[in-house]
Amino acid sequence: MINKINPQAEIGFDVPAVPGMTESEVQTPCLIVDLDRLEYNLKKMADLIAPFNVSLRAHAKMHKSVDVALLQLTIGQASGICCQKVSEAEVFFRAGITDILITNQVCDARKISRLAGLAASGCRISVCVDDMRNVAMLSEEARKQNTQIHCLVELDCGAGRCGVLNVAQVVELASAIDAAHCLVFEGLQAYQGRIQHETDYGLRQKVMKDVIAKVKDCRDTLAAAELSCRVVSGGGTGTFLFEAASGVFTEVQCGSYAFMDADYGRVHNREGARLDQSEWANALFLLTSVMSTALDGHAVCDAGLKVQSVDSGLPVIFDHDDITYITCSDEHGVIRDKDNKLKINDKLRLVPGHCDPTCNLHDWYVCVRDGKVEALWPVSARGKAW
Amino acid sequence: MINKINPQAEIGFDVPAVPGMTESEVQTPCLIVDLDRLEYNLKKMADLIAPFNVSLRAHAKMHKSVDVALLQLTIGQASGICCQKVSEAEVFFRAGITDILITNQVCDARKISRLAGLAASGCRISVCVDDMRNVAMLSEEARKQNTQIHCLVELDCGAGRCGVLNVAQVVELASAIDAAHCLVFEGLQAYQGRIQHETDYGLRQKVMKDVIAKVKDCRDTLAAAELSCRVVSGGGTGTFLFEAASGVFTEVQCGSYAFMDADYGRVHNREGARLDQSEWANALFLLTSVMSTALDGHAVCDAGLKVQSVDSGLPVIFDHDDITYITCSDEHGVIRDKDNKLKINDKLRLVPGHCDPTCNLHDWYVCVRDGKVEALWPVSARGKAW
Repeated sequence: MINKINPQAEIGFDVPAVPGMTESEVQTPCLIVDLDRLEYNLKKMADLIAPFNVSLRAHAKMHKSVDVALLQLTIGQASGICCQKVSEAEVFFRAGITDILITNQVCDARKISRLAGLAASGCRISVCVDDMRNVAMLSEEARKQNTQIHCLVELDCGAGRCGVLNVAQVVELASAIDAAHCLVFEGLQAYQGRIQHETDYGLRQKVMKDVIAKVKDCRDTLAAAELSCRVVSGGGTGTFLFEAASGVFTEVQCGSYAFMDADYGRVHNREGARLDQSEWANALFLLTSVMSTALDGHAVCDAGLKVQSVDSGLPVIFDHDDITYITCSDEHGVIRDKDNKLKINDKLRLVPGHCDPTCNLHDWYVCVRDGKVEALWPVSARGKAW
Repeated sequence: MINKINPQAEIGFDVPAVPGMTESEVQTPCLIVDLDRLEYNLKKMADLIAPFNVSLRAHAKMHKSVDVALLQLTIGQASGICCQKVSEAEVFFRAGITDILITNQVCDARKISRLAGLAASGCRISVCVDDMRNVAMLSEEARKQNTQIHCLVELDCGAGRCGVLNVAQVVELASAIDAAHCLVFEGLQAYQGRIQHETDYGLRQKVMKDVIAKVKDCRDTLAAAELSCRVVSGGGTGTFLFEAASGVFTEVQCGSYAFMDADYGRVHNREGARLDQSEWANALFLLTSVMSTALDGHAVCDAGLKVQSVDSGLPVIFDHDDITYITCSDEHGVIRDKDNKLKINDKLRLVPGHCDPTCNLHDWYVCVRDGKVEALWPVSARGKAW
């Protein structure tokens, strides 16, 4: 199941590791994927949603990895994947994944042409829409390329980003899509991005109750107008059990559950337990080495801003509670180590603050099992932002 | 002077633009380098330090671009470059740059082997040292590869990162380097990273006065011990004129001046003027497109956390004071646009909050002059973190 085809490359310059190495030999800083933990998370998600009438459309924007996506589709029982950008979808389609939802607007003419090109090449492609002119552009290009594009109307659920606000706008857009040549009205995109990382379970529950009521209202109004939703899609790692149990959503779009990160780790589940100590295992680590211990009471490691995003807080040092990562600059992390225990070349596993933008900084996942490198996976869609 | 060799690639999938396009046709989000402004900054730096007895060793960690580095060495009159990582130095040496200072510790055995490999291949390589065991490791490997490594003792100047704290430690390290086989004691690395972005000129001046006194003391004590410093290196875009005028430093290590960013823009010069309205021109932009205007009073653009680092604040919208970039998520930026002026597919130039980690997210610089794409430059050492 694990892709073990490995690149022929120069260790250090091109790749941080080769299979067979021990974790202590890996060149740092780099990303480590703990395969046992990843597989645990993928199976756990399948188990958690099994009681409900929803499928998992795994969000590949998080990991940007063909290898992880293929595992999600097999052992994770996902029905398809989500992407955020056309260029990401191109990477995953080239790897043989043929059912892709772009959970985003595609407005630029050249990008719309590439989107239609994916559909014309045999990809079942869906995209989100919140603008009437965009409907016309998508339709025109799909007709030009003699293909079909599936469209979800995006409803703003309180995230204050893309999506229309009210039912009347949803119906107007859905009708336009339904009437447009070569477009298929597929249903609704309803993702509350802002509430995913709220640590308090009760608050997430309260917000999601309103979101679900609003989405149900839209779905029912559309059905009354003979615009039935084949798909109602939404839900992330922080809320997906609400969507799954709603009877309204048909699929969930979780991404972070596969790897986890420090910020999601602090979120509490219904029993008040942290997600990283209950539902999910930390499977993604930023491996770093100590490079200076010159100053008393602290050590400097080689993992700074160029190998992680600190937008959601600093990384947490895994499996150590006597040392703390306290500041981050371009190339360095400073670790408080009051007893001066750390030595130069000591290696530490960091749990990144936020997995998505951290993964996007790296070219490789070094996949480890039982302390040994088992495979090297490219971050296939790294940098694919267009 | 401008490298105009252009990649043969698929627009959109592989590259965001090709030469001859207008800026409005470029696929977003991507980095734009305004060539007139870049050339202005490079010449300006040469002019600013000309009165002083210092050279510029331009810091290539900022742009990670062979093309920019070569311009710095030619029209910018730089004497060499700095890097932070061995893998970066490998990229620049392969491109023909033969005098490189790694302004960082290199401690891992495999990295030390690669460092010595650069020296053995004809690169004049210098590295920073703050640990006695590291001296022994560097010496052993240089001897094994029958080459020489130049070493600067790093002095902590208040940044609280790498470097030793006091003169006695500096002398001890310098003596050990001097006595070690195949190592050359080169001088001092003294960079006050923490004060570079302090906006207040008077505060920077005060801190730098103490730094310069401490560095002078070290240099003089070393000279008295017959360990003379050929090089005293330090200084960034926020402080380099202090180092240049000190009579103590022999070279400055500026990086950000070439591109500038929003955070350095807010720093004031001695006349109280912002640096981006006096010394330096913003030459680096993140080009973004509006992709949703569904919600009243705001617009959503396609530049989020995956194309910029927000560690030093959000980006500033260039040349517009009626709209403001107010929040950033993985793939989106939300722009306050109270008069709903923005339309879908409108393009905006953003000035990134922090240039170094932003450049490291991208594969290409789209080089523009007079609104037209003149060249595409790879971000040659992107992701080279080892």
